[in-house]
Amino acid sequence: MVELLEEISQKLLWIRKNRPLIHQITNYVSANDCANATLALGASPVMAHDINEVEEMTSKASALVLNIGTLSVANIPAYLKAGITAKERGIPVVFDPVGVGATKQRTEVAKAILADVQPDIIRCNMTELNVLCHRKVAVKGVDSIASEAGRGELAREFAEKTNAVVAVTGKTDLVVDKKNMITIENGDEWLTRVTGTGCMTSALVASFAAAGNAFIGAVAGVLAMGICGELAKLRLTENEGIGTFRMRLIDEIFQLNCDIIKKYGKIS
Amino acid sequence: MVELLEEISQKLLWIRKNRPLIHQITNYVSANDCANATLALGASPVMAHDINEVEEMTSKASALVLNIGTLSVANIPAYLKAGITAKERGIPVVFDPVGVGATKQRTEVAKAILADVQPDIIRCNMTELNVLCHRKVAVKGVDSIASEAGRGELAREFAEKTNAVVAVTGKTDLVVDKKNMITIENGDEWLTRVTGTGCMTSALVASFAAAGNAFIGAVAGVLAMGICGELAKLRLTENEGIGTFRMRLIDEIFQLNCDIIKKYGKIS
Amino acid sequence: MVELLEEISQKLLWIRKNRPLIHQITNYVSANDCANATLALGASPVMAHDINEVEEMTSKASALVLNIGTLSVANIPAYLKAGITAKERGIPVVFDPVGVGATKQRTEVAKAILADVQPDIIRCNMTELNVLCHRKVAVKGVDSIASEAGRGELAREFAEKTNAVVAVTGKTDLVVDKKNMITIENGDEWLTRVTGTGCMTSALVASFAAAGNAFIGAVAGVLAMGICGELAKLRLTENEGIGTFRMRLIDEIFQLNCDIIKKYGKIS
Repeated sequence: MVELLEEISQKLLWIRKNRPLIHQITNYVSANDCANATLALGASPVMAHDINEVEEMTSKASALVLNIGTLSVANIPAYLKAGITAKERGIPVVFDPVGVGATKQRTEVAKAILADVQPDIIRCNMTELNVLCHRKVAVKGVDSIASEAGRGELAREFAEKTNAVVAVTGKTDLVVDKKNMITIENGDEWLTRVTGTGCMTSALVASFAAAGNAFIGAVAGVLAMGICGELAKLRLTENEGIGTFRMRLIDEIFQLNCDIIKKYGKIS
Repeated sequence: MVELLEEISQKLLWIRKNRPLIHQITNYVSANDCANATLALGASPVMAHDINEVEEMTSKASALVLNIGTLSVANIPAYLKAGITAKERGIPVVFDPVGVGATKQRTEVAKAILADVQPDIIRCNMTELNVLCHRKVAVKGVDSIASEAGRGELAREFAEKTNAVVAVTGKTDLVVDKKNMITIENGDEWLTRVTGTGCMTSALVASFAAAGNAFIGAVAGVLAMGICGELAKLRLTENEGIGTFRMRLIDEIFQLNCDIIKKYGKIS
Repeated sequence: MVELLEEISQKLLWIRKNRPLIHQITNYVSANDCANATLALGASPVMAHDINEVEEMTSKASALVLNIGTLSVANIPAYLKAGITAKERGIPVVFDPVGVGATKQRTEVAKAILADVQPDIIRCNMTELNVLCHRKVAVKGVDSIASEAGRGELAREFAEKTNAVVAVTGKTDLVVDKKNMITIENGDEWLTRVTGTGCMTSALVASFAAAGNAFIGAVAGVLAMGICGELAKLRLTENEGIGTFRMRLIDEIFQLNCDIIKKYGKIS
């Protein structure tokens, strides 16, 4: 795993040198945090959702995020058009199925994106994974309430079916494709107490995927958020809460470097 | 009033134990702060505004916020559908008539929500209360510029007409229903210098109302924001301004506990 | 230039006394930061984008910002209607052509705004200026990658053609109209590492322009952001990054006063 941490470190250097453009069709709740997380890592975010401009915007990007957090029916064609454009051009697509299962519309849109776009990476929580795999599961808004038992098998099954890298974040994080399975032990419970940390993780995953390998990109993005969550929490003092934590998270992404990745990264 | 503070404290414990889902149809300016304020208190926010999913989303929620801060004509039916769904199922509805009176459309939408939804709680400022009561009043954007004289009578009249709890925030805050009237002396002038503190208050009110009593919920949400505003201001150092204050506000909501409520709460 | 700094200081006092309403049709990525930057300066922001309310909202405002950062085709008529309303009533219009050139739609909308609204101030980066002047230039998302060579002539040419004040922000900032050209040496490279600092600058420019002179307003808004960026950077400690910097930026705008303007302002 030392080699993998080394490889992730090299991807970080690549991002900071090349400032890849990351096109994000995302929600209005966490859009600002996703943009700043992307910038903090060293990439260049652009948010654009209109059907008349997604094709051009995606074409110039090095990765695309499709996040359905605050879905409008009017924007569904734009998600598909951007996704298909990216795939045609070999631009990696990260799909974040926020709240899938919470409503029929989200489930249908997710199905359409999986079928028509065939994303390279699916970054989700355990509740969302269950829904995408047609398991019966209680859904409550956009936060995961599902048990994490048996998720390795489920994620593998889903990776095989979709031919995608599946990154499931939770108490421990899991990144799976047809052949590989990596567990990441970084992170902090407070990451579930700030809105949009999953969305930000998807933005980091896309930034790393822009450096050329979907599996390593997914591991790197999830690992980066986990490490930065840990360090942000460590630096808090007595009267600080999730307000300060949220700000420090961006600081830690900005301060992230190869030494930190190798020192703190816990993957297996 | 000691009993009321005790009751509010119990509601806080209930929120932290049960993590109620708070569905918020709100504006893109303060959506992130509303989500983080909701999480900081201990509840679980979900923002969804599309006509095709509000019925399902509201049905699973423990409270609903209707905030018209950045209203789109396309979303008006969604406000009504979500509100009517909530009322049919006994889910408390908090209406935040942001900027009512600033445009005809906002005034008409507010009227429609009052008539068709009959919200349980109306959380507004003094200018908005005047407009909703058909008083002549100057309106300038979304910030209140109205005199607070005579607002007790006006709020009571409006509470009787709408059968709702009316929470008017300002220099002192007022919560009124047909029978009760509570004044809250907490807060800080800086709460008017940060965007969306009214919206965040409505999110807190909804979170508390999810615990089962609209009047106590309204008092609790307004009180919580007032206390947290005071404490956030107290902890500031010389060179800090509303940027830091806004972040600390979320910290204080996160740190809020029964002792703080009983120690700092100034209600009469 | 001492007189100009004195004049800018007087405008700041005017804003804080009069709290002008600044109507902003803007993007959902930086809307919260723009609102808080406006409030921190002392003005009163209102965001409203719906075609049915922009005429009324603009009519009551002291300045209007048209920012096309996350353009929706459905909102294009609202930009034009708000802009034309403002011009008819002598309300200054600041146009921020975010990402112009990145897509055909943005370029066409920018052309329409220039032709039909004739904004008083155009606040852009060097890539955007090149596009607006029909120069061939690479465009990558919304961040500038263009050389700043020859921009004085280009900005002057554009100012003459549009009859507007042209404010080009970059390593050094430039404000140009038909007769005047001012260079501002304040700022910090980190302002390019936080999303929406250009948008926030446009909000400050509009707030200052509300005080009555488009050219001085543009210089003042750009100068204010430059000084506050410098001071925010100066106050950072070792482990802090762009998360903290973004928050301090709002603090510094809030703390800005006449002494700071005169002490730190570097204009020529």
